Amino acid sequence: MENPSLTKPNTANTVELLAKERKGCSFSTQAMDNFINGTEWIKKRNTAIAIIRKNPEVFDLSQVYFMDRQEIIEKAIQIEANVAELLKDKKITQDEAIALFHFLDFGGPYFVHRAMFIPTLERQANEEQKKAFLEPARDYKIIGCYAQTEMGHGSNVRGIETTATFVEEDDTFEIHSPTLTSTKWWIGTLGIAATHACVMAQLIVKGKHYGLYPIIVPVRDLKTFKPFPGVNVGDIGPKMGFNNVDNGFVNFQKVKVSRFNVLQRYINISRTGEVSLLKDFDPRVTYSTMVFVRATIINTVGRELAKSVTIASRYTAVRKQGWTKGTDEVPVLDYDIVQYRLIPLVAKTFAMLGMSHEFYAQYELCINNIESGDFSLLKEMHAVSCGLKKWCSDTMIYGVDTCRHLCGGHGFSSFAGFSFSFNNLYPHIIWEGDNFVLAQQTARYLIKSSIDVSKPLGSKPADPTSLLLNRYTLENTMFSWKYKSVSQIANDMDLLLDLLAYRFSYFTHSLAKKIHIENQSWNDSTVEVQTLSTVYSEYMICMYFKRHINKLSSTDNIYSPIKNLYCITALSSLLRNTGELYSLGSAAGIDQNFISNLEDELMSAIKLSRSQLIPLVDSLGLPDEKLNSSLGRYDGKVYEDYMSRALMEPLNRKDSGTRIRTEQTTNLAANYDSDVSTLQVVKAARFDENIGESLINSTLVNVFNSQT
Amino acid sequence: MENPSLTKPNTANTVELLAKERKGCSFSTQAMDNFINGTEWIKKRNTAIAIIRKNPEVFDLSQVYFMDRQEIIEKAIQIEANVAELLKDKKITQDEAIALFHFLDFGGPYFVHRAMFIPTLERQANEEQKKAFLEPARDYKIIGCYAQTEMGHGSNVRGIETTATFVEEDDTFEIHSPTLTSTKWWIGTLGIAATHACVMAQLIVKGKHYGLYPIIVPVRDLKTFKPFPGVNVGDIGPKMGFNNVDNGFVNFQKVKVSRFNVLQRYINISRTGEVSLLKDFDPRVTYSTMVFVRATIINTVGRELAKSVTIASRYTAVRKQGWTKGTDEVPVLDYDIVQYRLIPLVAKTFAMLGMSHEFYAQYELCINNIESGDFSLLKEMHAVSCGLKKWCSDTMIYGVDTCRHLCGGHGFSSFAGFSFSFNNLYPHIIWEGDNFVLAQQTARYLIKSSIDVSKPLGSKPADPTSLLLNRYTLENTMFSWKYKSVSQIANDMDLLLDLLAYRFSYFTHSLAKKIHIENQSWNDSTVEVQTLSTVYSEYMICMYFKRHINKLSSTDNIYSPIKNLYCITALSSLLRNTGELYSLGSAAGIDQNFISNLEDELMSAIKLSRSQLIPLVDSLGLPDEKLNSSLGRYDGKVYEDYMSRALMEPLNRKDSGTRIRTEQTTNLAANYDSDVSTLQVVKAARFDENIGESLINSTLVNVFNSQT
Repeated sequence: MENPSLTKPNTANTVELLAKERKGCSFSTQAMDNFINGTEWIKKRNTAIAIIRKNPEVFDLSQVYFMDRQEIIEKAIQIEANVAELLKDKKITQDEAIALFHFLDFGGPYFVHRAMFIPTLERQANEEQKKAFLEPARDYKIIGCYAQTEMGHGSNVRGIETTATFVEEDDTFEIHSPTLTSTKWWIGTLGIAATHACVMAQLIVKGKHYGLYPIIVPVRDLKTFKPFPGVNVGDIGPKMGFNNVDNGFVNFQKVKVSRFNVLQRYINISRTGEVSLLKDFDPRVTYSTMVFVRATIINTVGRELAKSVTIASRYTAVRKQGWTKGTDEVPVLDYDIVQYRLIPLVAKTFAMLGMSHEFYAQYELCINNIESGDFSLLKEMHAVSCGLKKWCSDTMIYGVDTCRHLCGGHGFSSFAGFSFSFNNLYPHIIWEGDNFVLAQQTARYLIKSSIDVSKPLGSKPADPTSLLLNRYTLENTMFSWKYKSVSQIANDMDLLLDLLAYRFSYFTHSLAKKIHIENQSWNDSTVEVQTLSTVYSEYMICMYFKRHINKLSSTDNIYSPIKNLYCITALSSLLRNTGELYSLGSAAGIDQNFISNLEDELMSAIKLSRSQLIPLVDSLGLPDEKLNSSLGRYDGKVYEDYMSRALMEPLNRKDSGTRIRTEQTTNLAANYDSDVSTLQVVKAARFDENIGESLINSTLVNVFNSQT
Repeated sequence: MENPSLTKPNTANTVELLAKERKGCSFSTQAMDNFINGTEWIKKRNTAIAIIRKNPEVFDLSQVYFMDRQEIIEKAIQIEANVAELLKDKKITQDEAIALFHFLDFGGPYFVHRAMFIPTLERQANEEQKKAFLEPARDYKIIGCYAQTEMGHGSNVRGIETTATFVEEDDTFEIHSPTLTSTKWWIGTLGIAATHACVMAQLIVKGKHYGLYPIIVPVRDLKTFKPFPGVNVGDIGPKMGFNNVDNGFVNFQKVKVSRFNVLQRYINISRTGEVSLLKDFDPRVTYSTMVFVRATIINTVGRELAKSVTIASRYTAVRKQGWTKGTDEVPVLDYDIVQYRLIPLVAKTFAMLGMSHEFYAQYELCINNIESGDFSLLKEMHAVSCGLKKWCSDTMIYGVDTCRHLCGGHGFSSFAGFSFSFNNLYPHIIWEGDNFVLAQQTARYLIKSSIDVSKPLGSKPADPTSLLLNRYTLENTMFSWKYKSVSQIANDMDLLLDLLAYRFSYFTHSLAKKIHIENQSWNDSTVEVQTLSTVYSEYMICMYFKRHINKLSSTDNIYSPIKNLYCITALSSLLRNTGELYSLGSAAGIDQNFISNLEDELMSAIKLSRSQLIPLVDSLGLPDEKLNSSLGRYDGKVYEDYMSRALMEPLNRKDSGTRIRTEQTTNLAANYDSDVSTLQVVKAARFDENIGESLINSTLVNVFNSQT
């Protein structure tokens, strides 16, 4: 057997391999960065990097993989306190603070204070209340949380059990948790940090129930931080991830607060218990807030997937395995199956980041219209935001997982950077509407729009989705792609989009028919509804992404690589479950041959992006501090970084392993008997009492330290 | 708005709901337990439970969710030391010890010592070496690991760089790691525990290279545990999971060991460097060992998926949300989409556990044949074991994830029990052959078998797979299901199996044609190969599962529920990607209508199992100690358990949160000013200096403690 490692020294050459990948770059990575991230974000990103590099003692997170929960919380509060200082001293803006936290992937215990407590006061407190609560909150004199979710009641707010009952005698409201399940739960910032909670409770005045209203309840003393009497408050314990936030619980045993503490923008209770509802909250405004929150999630998860695809692309480009092409080992990125798993994820990352510029623009248009009384775009916006939040967060979380798996065994090490991210990002598929529930919101809108198609012209909605549903009814026989070759279709952004549009329209009308003509119940439709939401979102992703790409001239050197990423996104969406394509039928020109050719086109497009893959992920603009990964280092010093992190493992500190072993194996220890085997075996070993130090001081370590 | 929680107290009724689910049970859960787990496993399980309950101080793992890495390792070694004692005192057998570790999901630092170091010595040491190494290893006088994988070389053993060079002058071998990437890495038991390593190195004697051989190298002193000179050894640091094992690294700087230490069963080196290869290792024996290891993984992952489906089934049966049916909230398990996600996983759990009895039987038949010189079954066994290892571990790991997601926000809490499992089980998709690589092994065998079909009778292989490929050639037009109704097919175990057989045969022959007639390269086939391995494995799972079910009489009360689980497994496999079915074509009677009806049949079968779901998971036989989950408690006391675990969170200890907050926010602290808002706001609060204790002593806590 000829063994390459003996015929020439294997030095892995990871640095050289990565450099070589960058040589063939056909476009300006800086222009691509500008185009895909936007100059505004790049400015914030640069501010964030500057803050981190200026004060690494606070902001460097390279040690986070060694931290236990308590240390993580301590680090998070340390960062929070420093950011609060920077904000107070006006050294950074609120937007930059948000960008910094996003950049660090490490929100802290004041997150809800900033993101929910303060905005709720801004919207729902009257002027006196703003003075009492909002001003000290802005100065971090009090720290607040938003206590809505209960142990037994998640997204279903109607089920909330906590009561706030007016007590006329002493002009107070009595806050009470009648059952164990009514304990407020998952409340961020409440575990250890909050002094005040904005509690959502069922308001009861003189025996009459008025529904859910927010009440400010002090929970911990401002000097001692001890909880007030009747307030059972604490941290809900360890979680899969997100341990940098102190999600807490609170259960109130008849705790009294002043009547003043009920936020009074929408309701007023007089000294004698007269209740006046000041104005109705327009539920459509709530919808637009939800749209905004989901738009933010969509953008966030795109940036997070960017991190994982950067790591996986760089590492698979330098990790060699197998000898399929001659004598030298091949980078695993040269295998079809690796490209097939990785490159569509890179494409979708670009799609998410690119489309979000246009999606935000559409959102702003929608809001402007609302402000002038025109709500016509809101329903579609809401439906699209639900679908996209599901699609983007699913794509991101399972994309991170795929990237981890693509890195083989080393992907399983914390130092790879995937697992900490995966665990922290996981809630995105659950919160702000569980993804399986959100699909129903999207589908309800589509089914309704399908019915509207049969209405007389003039009286039917004219939002973009409705127009498409009008064009692609089940009776339609006009297909723009029908007389084109598969290769023409696969390389034409418009034709691909038409196919995606037809697919979601077909699924919409088919399900609407089942529901409205064949009387299928909604519960019996919830499985199909998931597919409907997905095919609709895949259209929307591509539609907005194309709109962004269309701003480029086709002669721009970034046009061709980004257009190819669009084609990969569209093709891999169309081919996700080929059964969906088959069901569109041969009338639309779709048969086994068509599908099989489309699969070949997808693979060709993937191979086209392969040659530019490292420059493409470079242009996502994520520095090593953000990646926090041995495998994803920009300079390719993968193994040097990996080893130097391992050496920091606390178990490797002098005597650490020995202590554990000795303490825990007292009984067994009597067995160890060096006479039996050591002397016979280690003939040549020189004993050295100071060898415990060898780990850190060895030549090996010095060798690669000098390289770093 | 009418709110249910105000008209009647919401007591969640989780205990009553679960009891009600058990009332309608149509079969004996004990008989089902016996049938699906087998009496032999049940005996071991009972031994494990008895050991745990007898010594909870050592074996109770309820605190594991609070532990940091160091504490987890300490716990693991404590358990190891106790098990070693039990073994030495012959209080348990080796098999029971393995069952105990499996039951705990908590293998420890001696795992590799038992599972690899000792067996390697048994197989490859000569008698003298057995006396020197094997005997003290069995008595835990030395602790060994198996050092093969290197930092830069995972599954590709040919790339291993570590050398063992004969030094004639002092009759030693010099062990050397020439590069950073040659550092042994991921070696279980090596991080802190091992005293010896069985090192796989390139053997060089007098300038000649003989390939990889195992050499026993002492790494740490037996008395002080300090590493020997030139041995750079330590723990590789934190991982996604599996932190109960001390995966380590070692890099040798010209470390000398006696010539005696080269394991000599297959090679002998004389004092003067004459090398005699004693016998060739029959590679087919290696294959049968790999088959055995994979068979063990298949069985293990089935038991682990059993844990997650038990938790998710019980919790979704008691977690109420939404009011679709009248005034009371509905358990989420009554929603179609929840059933659709969960129940096929329950079915596949039964399929994995049930089929493994028959798969083991086939493995034993294969081994018996091998012992009498007949290797004819080995190739198929090897291919099946690769495919099933991939299918079962993928199904398990993403099944655990689905179960976690099905439990909503609470699934994200460590106390749910999913995340610790998910993180520890994840390596199953990577080790013993990465799943994407294993699919290629399975496919190579199938493609080869497809070619053999055209050979003259007599000269072609007659293993079961080949017979099927003979029956279902691309020219075949005989289909057992062709004149049956979809409802008949969906309820007939044989017809479903025929469909699965035809599907994998069709895919095999189609790909073989591309490769052998159209000259498609193997690299260009690796994407299709993944599908081929999956459809083949889905057939095999059902084939062996059916074989197990066929042992039952159809009048047995467990027959009907388990047969329905078979149908769900088969149907959901057939419908996983409906494009695969479409491609079989209308010649086989498969069209849009057929597929749509099959989907309806799947949903009907799911609904049939819904009514028996809780008894079904009960019969998987997993006690609360194994589940270690608030959400999965047998008695349904979900929220009581959840709260009592949260109260144990270290951050909730007196002053713990306060200390962190005060230390980390020194600058901000100056801001806190009780004059500003507290007095105005908390009119009715009575201050109480001892309120820090309230958390533990509150009425609330007493209430539910008395329930537990």
